[in-house]
Amino acid sequence: MTPLDQLIQLLAKLPGLGPRSARRAALHLLKRRETLMEPLGRAIVEATRSIRSCSRCGNLDTVDPCGICTDPGRDGSAICVVDDVADVWALERTGAYRGLYHVLGGTLSALEGVRPEDLRIPLLLERASAGVAEVIIALDATIEGQTTAHYIADRLAPLGIKATRLAHGVPVGGELDYLDEGTLTAALKARRPA
Amino acid sequence: MTPLDQLIQLLAKLPGLGPRSARRAALHLLKRRETLMEPLGRAIVEATRSIRSCSRCGNLDTVDPCGICTDPGRDGSAICVVDDVADVWALERTGAYRGLYHVLGGTLSALEGVRPEDLRIPLLLERASAGVAEVIIALDATIEGQTTAHYIADRLAPLGIKATRLAHGVPVGGELDYLDEGTLTAALKARRPA
Repeated sequence: MTPLDQLIQLLAKLPGLGPRSARRAALHLLKRRETLMEPLGRAIVEATRSIRSCSRCGNLDTVDPCGICTDPGRDGSAICVVDDVADVWALERTGAYRGLYHVLGGTLSALEGVRPEDLRIPLLLERASAGVAEVIIALDATIEGQTTAHYIADRLAPLGIKATRLAHGVPVGGELDYLDEGTLTAALKARRPA
Repeated sequence: MTPLDQLIQLLAKLPGLGPRSARRAALHLLKRRETLMEPLGRAIVEATRSIRSCSRCGNLDTVDPCGICTDPGRDGSAICVVDDVADVWALERTGAYRGLYHVLGGTLSALEGVRPEDLRIPLLLERASAGVAEVIIALDATIEGQTTAHYIADRLAPLGIKATRLAHGVPVGGELDYLDEGTLTAALKARRPA
């Protein structure tokens, strides 16, 4: 295989790119060698070398434990449990949370044989037992996410640790008549004084 | 900037990826270090190093002149003029053309100040004068493409070289009622015995 075919084939494995757009991307790179192609090659090689999983929370960073785990400005009494590193990034972008994280790396699934010990749940219980006041379970509102959330809440209860979950409701900027009944029902039940 | 932010920022410059999908792509890579991230980094570095423009036809290859220009099995009496290397790839995928190519690297544009000498047109005329029987002008059916096609045909005429262009017509597999009037008119005028 030529270096060009190899480049196109690998680019096509990125999410959001197919065979056709991978060809476009390869050509785009080859036309911008100094400004994009060389820097991207270096960035990938450097990121491969330097970025690792935090052995404590599962976040990705160049240091282990990660910058969030070791930040003295963060509230060590709260742990937010998420499925994936992308969820850490999403929550960090809000700037609304100043506690720590715990990335499960998936959700429980009997069908796919994903058990608690496959998901860093034992490590979560260990961390939570060491002086954490609140565990915020921020998992997807899917069946797998909610099954996992229940499992974790059940394990935290005997340890006397408060477990909370994200509120359901109307998305900010969302239009009511586009919302599903489940969300609307949850928003109605959780209504607050205006 | 962290290596991760840098990676995301560069990925976001690829066509088809925005800031959001670049984050997804970076995470996708970091979860597949051995199988995708390292090979892609190496492929980009290697392609940057080894792929160059053919000084004769403008195609991209690891050798100069390119593999098409030096292939003894190809018909040196025909040159197909295209806008971009992507068009060479598209025509090669058909397997229907066995002549040589000439990549202009753009189309004439008074508005954007693109002149014939910016487009490798002088080199085309030089190559065409050296014993070429036919120049197939395969440029986009846009105003810029057709202006460029006319300019080239006008320059080739006094040299006594036959200039042809791709046929207009109904796309294979295309439905008539989705076609624009221009294409349908062209297909009707160029109708052939059934």
